[in-house]
Amino acid sequence: MDNLQHFRRTDYCGTFTAANVGQEISVCGWVQRQRNLGSLIFVDLRDRTGLLQLAFDDSTPRDLFEKAASLRGEYVIAAKGLVRERESKNPELPTGDIEVKVTELRLLAKAATPPFEIVEHSDVRDAVRLKYRYLDLRRPDMQRTIALRHKIVKICRDYFDENGFLEIETPILTKSTPEGARDYLVPSRVHPGKFYALPQSPQQYKQLLMLSGFDRYFQIARCFRDEDLRADRQPEFTQIDLEMSFLDEEQIQTIQEGFLQRVFQEVLGVEVQTPFQRMPWREAMDRFGSDKPDLRFGFELKDISDLVKDCGFGVFADAVKGGGSVRLINVDGHAKDFPRKKIDKLGEFVKTYQAKGLAWARLLDGKVTSSYQKFLTEEENAAILARAGAKDGDLVLIVGDTKDEVVFAALGALRLECAKQLDILDPKEFRFLWVTEFPMFEWSEEEGRYQAMHHPFTAPMLEDEDKMLTDKANCRARAYDIVLNGTELGGGSIRINTPEMQTKAFEALGISDEDIQERFGHLVNAFQYGAPPHGGLAYGLDRLVMLMTGASSIRDVIAFPKVQNASDLMMNCPDVVDEKQLDDLSIAVTRVEEEPAEEE
Amino acid sequence: MDNLQHFRRTDYCGTFTAANVGQEISVCGWVQRQRNLGSLIFVDLRDRTGLLQLAFDDSTPRDLFEKAASLRGEYVIAAKGLVRERESKNPELPTGDIEVKVTELRLLAKAATPPFEIVEHSDVRDAVRLKYRYLDLRRPDMQRTIALRHKIVKICRDYFDENGFLEIETPILTKSTPEGARDYLVPSRVHPGKFYALPQSPQQYKQLLMLSGFDRYFQIARCFRDEDLRADRQPEFTQIDLEMSFLDEEQIQTIQEGFLQRVFQEVLGVEVQTPFQRMPWREAMDRFGSDKPDLRFGFELKDISDLVKDCGFGVFADAVKGGGSVRLINVDGHAKDFPRKKIDKLGEFVKTYQAKGLAWARLLDGKVTSSYQKFLTEEENAAILARAGAKDGDLVLIVGDTKDEVVFAALGALRLECAKQLDILDPKEFRFLWVTEFPMFEWSEEEGRYQAMHHPFTAPMLEDEDKMLTDKANCRARAYDIVLNGTELGGGSIRINTPEMQTKAFEALGISDEDIQERFGHLVNAFQYGAPPHGGLAYGLDRLVMLMTGASSIRDVIAFPKVQNASDLMMNCPDVVDEKQLDDLSIAVTRVEEEPAEEE
Repeated sequence: MDNLQHFRRTDYCGTFTAANVGQEISVCGWVQRQRNLGSLIFVDLRDRTGLLQLAFDDSTPRDLFEKAASLRGEYVIAAKGLVRERESKNPELPTGDIEVKVTELRLLAKAATPPFEIVEHSDVRDAVRLKYRYLDLRRPDMQRTIALRHKIVKICRDYFDENGFLEIETPILTKSTPEGARDYLVPSRVHPGKFYALPQSPQQYKQLLMLSGFDRYFQIARCFRDEDLRADRQPEFTQIDLEMSFLDEEQIQTIQEGFLQRVFQEVLGVEVQTPFQRMPWREAMDRFGSDKPDLRFGFELKDISDLVKDCGFGVFADAVKGGGSVRLINVDGHAKDFPRKKIDKLGEFVKTYQAKGLAWARLLDGKVTSSYQKFLTEEENAAILARAGAKDGDLVLIVGDTKDEVVFAALGALRLECAKQLDILDPKEFRFLWVTEFPMFEWSEEEGRYQAMHHPFTAPMLEDEDKMLTDKANCRARAYDIVLNGTELGGGSIRINTPEMQTKAFEALGISDEDIQERFGHLVNAFQYGAPPHGGLAYGLDRLVMLMTGASSIRDVIAFPKVQNASDLMMNCPDVVDEKQLDDLSIAVTRVEEEPAEEE
Repeated sequence: MDNLQHFRRTDYCGTFTAANVGQEISVCGWVQRQRNLGSLIFVDLRDRTGLLQLAFDDSTPRDLFEKAASLRGEYVIAAKGLVRERESKNPELPTGDIEVKVTELRLLAKAATPPFEIVEHSDVRDAVRLKYRYLDLRRPDMQRTIALRHKIVKICRDYFDENGFLEIETPILTKSTPEGARDYLVPSRVHPGKFYALPQSPQQYKQLLMLSGFDRYFQIARCFRDEDLRADRQPEFTQIDLEMSFLDEEQIQTIQEGFLQRVFQEVLGVEVQTPFQRMPWREAMDRFGSDKPDLRFGFELKDISDLVKDCGFGVFADAVKGGGSVRLINVDGHAKDFPRKKIDKLGEFVKTYQAKGLAWARLLDGKVTSSYQKFLTEEENAAILARAGAKDGDLVLIVGDTKDEVVFAALGALRLECAKQLDILDPKEFRFLWVTEFPMFEWSEEEGRYQAMHHPFTAPMLEDEDKMLTDKANCRARAYDIVLNGTELGGGSIRINTPEMQTKAFEALGISDEDIQERFGHLVNAFQYGAPPHGGLAYGLDRLVMLMTGASSIRDVIAFPKVQNASDLMMNCPDVVDEKQLDDLSIAVTRVEEEPAEEE
């Protein structure tokens, strides 16, 4: 413990250069390593800006030299000394031309040997990294990522502030929302038997703020979903949440384009062109088999249902007759990159998307080999290749199914898989796209009814309003997603702003009047008092940061993430609690985890 | 529903002036009121910037005029028209020189009659305001407050960003923290029988971030305490949370002074002088009876224990002999403002602070009347008035008790109460103060042991390190509070940064080794790996906004606050949930609220 008056830091380690030679400076940080060459000791001192070499030599007083000799990795020290030119310069290091001839040294804290070395791109396994997250975060790449996240968020706040948005905080202790996922619940002590829910998004609050006349709202909002975690999900995640009044889709999208342009410019130095391309959902599905197409490459889908619906190949004909389709992609110019074995593996790949199999035609050296041609007529075969635009050197991959969704899912994923295997995706290319005109409803096999594709507050397209109750399959919503390189960065919509239309939307979803009042009463009632036309958007901040930093896991862009089973390995939580706490909350545990519980 | 292309807003209502006369504009907003004078209709249109008058007259087409005639309060409309000079100007309104001769009008949403009028400073009762919060927020004063809160937060982020702080998000789903208040718990679905806790503050995370080398951290952090609510408390509240490495108290405080100076300058146009005054806790108690003294006025405390310890007045003598003290304030110059009746009421007032009574001396028109003088000698009486510095026109108020805390609490509150009754507190004067050298420990009657006054991570003062185990009553901490006009805006400390000292601090608090490992294991273990000297601070954002806006309730500075019983009247939460949800979480309700529960 020390008041540090004497060692007030001149500046961070990484900021010194040859221009500082001759100056007396004070620096603080962690010992990256200490090299004792007998009559010379070098210490690499690390702080959040980089490394700086400290030097001790013949002319160093004995006790100071011994102090330096006692330093170990990760010790925390403060040092004072003279900046001088190095004898052997290190061109790899920004401070590699200089070193500090130390005249005073203070040991601020010792350190045990860490469980892994504090270096860039550690290959330590995740469980260890996360248990010792405070050490993992010392690594330069993690430091850079967290600093970059700060910068992205700062630019976001600056931009929206400059554009008249007010940041308004909405509650975390709130009511169950209908986003479809499971809620995290918080038992109320004051109201036994009642619960708060953590918000899945501030959706209803932000709409109420529009009704209040705030006109432009934004918030970097924490959201919660108690879902089974996939690799790119966290139980709590952060959303850039926006809502605007009196604007239409195009105006809302233009504001967002300005934001993305700025953040890519200022953070990555990448010039993004605006306006972004726009594509109706239908077109995205037809051409790319995906509502978030990666536009950095071709291999577009073509429908050949009309060509094969009466053909002799049952797999094709039955798919079409069963109400589905047969479609293909042409991996043009890459037949030679996919020998039979690789094609077989692609066949396995599409099966994970429920496709029953993969048909293919390979055009190489003037010959066509194919898995299906023997079942078809020459004309049919030729028509398919013509539709594919196939020429020598191309590979045509075909999927048919009685369900269109399966065809799209399989070919959409296959298209990406081929691109990945071919390594043709340029990580420095950023292709933004607005996907628009989403379906208002989607059929849920599980529930046996139509559900809201976006959420029940989304407005239908003007020309489709009549279809809300009568032709749900073809009713389109004023919803839009912003997609970057095949990733959905965010999505939003124009909202319903009259109680009549909102009631109709609930009706279309089969929600009873009673349920409406119970679950959405506050919102429907509020809409009676004059709701402006409004719409908004929410970005997944974690995903945006991932894309901008090139991180491969969402865990790498969050300071203190949770693992797949939603636990925090560093804090050891969730954890058991005292009986008294539960009793105060009027709840009891009905089941305990099977692992040996750490009861107090 | 409308795509609004035709009515794209030229600008907000409040932005137009005589300079726009002759221009065609589009505006949108809410009808504040409609006045139909037969051949003329005026509509005051409101948006977040103010009001603008729309005019319809003889030359208005019939159907448009009738549309205008049908408008009611709070209808949402868009209008297009020509800006022209008004016939009768309204100097009270920024846009009072002009009006818009409307040529096109679109009704965007109707509105039912709101339960209260949307005007400044409504006197509607809180329960109604909060149930219809979305309407309450339309009121101009609420709009201003929320906009100002945004501005304060924006300046905060700008300032700390410019000063090298990184905003880093810490988890909301975390582990029980030891701040002393009750935790909100969140049952885990994946780990039956285990719970997350919502953070009372990000204290441990921010210390771990210092250990990670981030050096300067800040966050506008949501915090949660399940306490019985007082008027100025909310179950969730917002903290400006900061932590820094390698700095001492003075450097940390200087950074904060820069922030407060800037936010007061930019938001209120108030020039705050730095450095702020600093005062040890002991002095603050002795002079003002409070650890958050309001320095805008005098009436300082004086100790007269030495003068009365052997006097004939038992109330005084017994207080001193019982280990307490007798102290006074001189409400100088205000004897005439406090006739006997008012003094009697002050006597009642101090009893609410556990004082047994109030002794007083009133010096008016050359005479001294007093409640106690007959029990004392002439010399004793004279000595007391001399110590008080009392002259003709003064009022001396005395409290004695065997417990110093009672004397301080009563006189500290009495001092403020007198100032309030005299109305001598200038709301435009801002007196900042650092209170320093807080006691490390305070005795808890309830628990029968010493507790941490700040929190168990606070470092002792260098010169008091030895007293941690042996002389707890006199061990001072490196803690500091920032006080403004009698309100604690925030507080912080230099933290312990070695495992040895941290273990000693836990020991001093009587926390067992087992408990240390169970509750703070992650932190104590982390400190083995080289923790830099560090310290920080947290401001109560809600309180700062209250002080800067002059709001009288914390509810007025939060968009969606909760009421005293921790419920949200607008959302109707907390609420009952489905049995299935509870079953998924492996919990059961053991008691239900007595009120007629709204079971589904």
